[in-house]
Amino acid sequence: MKTDFPGPESQRFAKELNQVFDTRALNILADYKSSKGNYLVDGDGNVFLDVFAQIASIPIGYNNPELAKAAATTDMVDAIINRPALGNFPSKEWAGILKSGILKAAPRGLDNVFTAMAGSDANETAYKAAFMYRRQRERGGQDADFTAQELSSSMDNTAPGSPDLSILSFKGGFHGRLFGSLSTTRSKPIHKVDIPAFNWPQAPFPQLRYPLEQHAAENEASEQASLSEVDRLIRTWPLPPAAIIVEPIQSEGGDNHASPSYFRQLRALAARHGVLFIVDEVQTGVGATGRFWAHEHWDLDSPPDMVTFSKKAQAAGFYYGLPALRPNKPYRQFNTWMGDPVRALLFRAILAEIERLDLVANTARVGDYLYSRLEVLAARYPAHFANLRGKGQGTFISFDSPKRDQFVATAKKLGVNIGGCGAEAVRLRPMLIFQEKHADILLDVLEKVAKSL
Amino acid sequence: MKTDFPGPESQRFAKELNQVFDTRALNILADYKSSKGNYLVDGDGNVFLDVFAQIASIPIGYNNPELAKAAATTDMVDAIINRPALGNFPSKEWAGILKSGILKAAPRGLDNVFTAMAGSDANETAYKAAFMYRRQRERGGQDADFTAQELSSSMDNTAPGSPDLSILSFKGGFHGRLFGSLSTTRSKPIHKVDIPAFNWPQAPFPQLRYPLEQHAAENEASEQASLSEVDRLIRTWPLPPAAIIVEPIQSEGGDNHASPSYFRQLRALAARHGVLFIVDEVQTGVGATGRFWAHEHWDLDSPPDMVTFSKKAQAAGFYYGLPALRPNKPYRQFNTWMGDPVRALLFRAILAEIERLDLVANTARVGDYLYSRLEVLAARYPAHFANLRGKGQGTFISFDSPKRDQFVATAKKLGVNIGGCGAEAVRLRPMLIFQEKHADILLDVLEKVAKSL
Repeated sequence: MKTDFPGPESQRFAKELNQVFDTRALNILADYKSSKGNYLVDGDGNVFLDVFAQIASIPIGYNNPELAKAAATTDMVDAIINRPALGNFPSKEWAGILKSGILKAAPRGLDNVFTAMAGSDANETAYKAAFMYRRQRERGGQDADFTAQELSSSMDNTAPGSPDLSILSFKGGFHGRLFGSLSTTRSKPIHKVDIPAFNWPQAPFPQLRYPLEQHAAENEASEQASLSEVDRLIRTWPLPPAAIIVEPIQSEGGDNHASPSYFRQLRALAARHGVLFIVDEVQTGVGATGRFWAHEHWDLDSPPDMVTFSKKAQAAGFYYGLPALRPNKPYRQFNTWMGDPVRALLFRAILAEIERLDLVANTARVGDYLYSRLEVLAARYPAHFANLRGKGQGTFISFDSPKRDQFVATAKKLGVNIGGCGAEAVRLRPMLIFQEKHADILLDVLEKVAKSL
Repeated sequence: MKTDFPGPESQRFAKELNQVFDTRALNILADYKSSKGNYLVDGDGNVFLDVFAQIASIPIGYNNPELAKAAATTDMVDAIINRPALGNFPSKEWAGILKSGILKAAPRGLDNVFTAMAGSDANETAYKAAFMYRRQRERGGQDADFTAQELSSSMDNTAPGSPDLSILSFKGGFHGRLFGSLSTTRSKPIHKVDIPAFNWPQAPFPQLRYPLEQHAAENEASEQASLSEVDRLIRTWPLPPAAIIVEPIQSEGGDNHASPSYFRQLRALAARHGVLFIVDEVQTGVGATGRFWAHEHWDLDSPPDMVTFSKKAQAAGFYYGLPALRPNKPYRQFNTWMGDPVRALLFRAILAEIERLDLVANTARVGDYLYSRLEVLAARYPAHFANLRGKGQGTFISFDSPKRDQFVATAKKLGVNIGGCGAEAVRLRPMLIFQEKHADILLDVLEKVAKSL
């Protein structure tokens, strides 16, 4: 650290920016051109080890040289300046870009993609696919046409054309901030208050106690209670759920975990009721849990119906397998741009680097190292590293601290950028290039912070 | 044209793409690298004069050399590979990029921006701003805090935290396809059927008859009927509208116009009721009507409260002026990326070209030329150029044809790519670099099409 935080230059930039753009959520005024790898530089030249990574979205480091190469190709220039309406006018390269990139990363069993712009619209287009699928099935399949009443009532936003259906989500879940996704988000009031929402159901998410091995029975009971309530809501909610959406680890809501067994039962329960099962991997996807997709930890018998992605993919959308999730007619799931080839090209380059450097395995290994060292810290400072969680989940690790905001602020003054989530969780979201040496720097600062509080 | 349309290579590419990506809305399989200026090349080397321009979104031509330069800068590489979470970690360049780009284009009176990804979320974030503004005012201003009941009920998606408020839109309007924006979209059932929607009100949009000068009295009556219904809905709809959203020209809905006087009255009516006035310039903005923003044609006494943009801006978001449209706390209007610096840099380069080549004036001039020649065609083939409209609106011109789909398909076989909208409208959406010589080619093909039908 060269200056106090925030330093004078950062304050000057922030003041200028605030004239035209809301800066009240400003965390660090960054100098990206000077940033490198795991290190973020601010407007005053202060250097931070970055274990927040743009809210878990920088995958393989600032100014990654391979990404810089991909960004300087004629393909990229073409993608920037000739942006297509992908549904109407895809390029002759588009199939190849998808197959060598976004679809190469597709979860097992999901061989189609609808591309989007960010996590929110990735989830909302998945919801739309679920609603159309449900209504098609109720009408008697793909070949059954809409009734005149459905068509006319849809124009008035009333049933049956605008159906009284819902998406079931979980307390503590975060799925985005647009109107449909926000109706399924149940993280914090500040995300939701004053915004109209659909009358959609929420089930309790398991509330696991730590260490897990000391609370096996009550954790199992909490998971069963959650499943039982999901079952009840599907059977009784006045707006029947067309789909369940769940995060493998509730991230924004506080890094809440559940067991693989819970997710296997949830998937089976959804299938039994004919309700689609959407896994929101916006934050967990692309390697951070030590598997490419976090739901690979579950050993499902049958894949999720849809998996949504964004953040570290730098592209966004949802994968699907069921052919009937393509709506029965064109222009039902459609918009002008339908994604962004710039971001599809970048994801392809990210994937190539992940493969070349074996970064998923790296993250599993470094995560195990970090977790084991955090266990030592937690034993030493139990109040500041409570409910340590994420064992075997790569670097997707978190713990609770009663003075969380102060914890994170102190770390920043010591040169480490960390994020919080939920009420008092400290979430670690390093990039996939995080190594043992970076973990050591982080652990050293975490101990200093704990001592100082 | 070198081959039949679609040619063999295009068919082969389409078949390959269809394995992984829905291609049923496919129009032209494009070869962007070979496309140039107003001309789009397909996978078989066929060359089309493009007056649809990626659904009205390519602003200044394929492979524009100035944009290619901007796309190859180190600033652009930085923007691609170091994508920030703009709300938390803006770069020290971000204020400058906004001021020299997006905000340089801001409508008069609107000096702040919230950046987004596309038209749908630009509109939805504007709606969120309107709802938060409305509830803040009802609570007694920016300093009044939320009640405990508001906070807790918002987590259940129920009032008062999730308020029973609405956005008023117009029949025939199109504002996007996510859940909030789709609730205000009233263009066609295929956009809406099977998707749950909010119980929000719609007013009739004026239905003008052409030629305008022959129908002055009934057009005035239609506009007054619309205004009167807007007034009634604001006073009586069970979910009070926090805002009205309107397109200067209803584009997707069929290129429906209204007079400047109508919009002035609508703006005044909104102000009188304390309802915000949002102008959706996603399709009309950035020069195509012969003014930079279409609402400049109206000579408003006070500016719109918000103006949304996307498409030809290649960036997206909403402009606003009222300081209270910044919510009273941070993290209320927020998401991970909050826009895309890649697109902000591109918009800046687009603006520089528009200014350098005086392309708004160009579009006004060429539009007048095109319109006057279309009047001649309309007199000669009245059935195929019915309700010619867009006089004095740059190249934002359209007409109705009873055989519209055949009209557009025939034009394509003759080497011109044209779009339709509404039930039977042919909409012309050339780029801002469209010249008289291109208009002549277009007019020649239009006449051939009319003769052939």
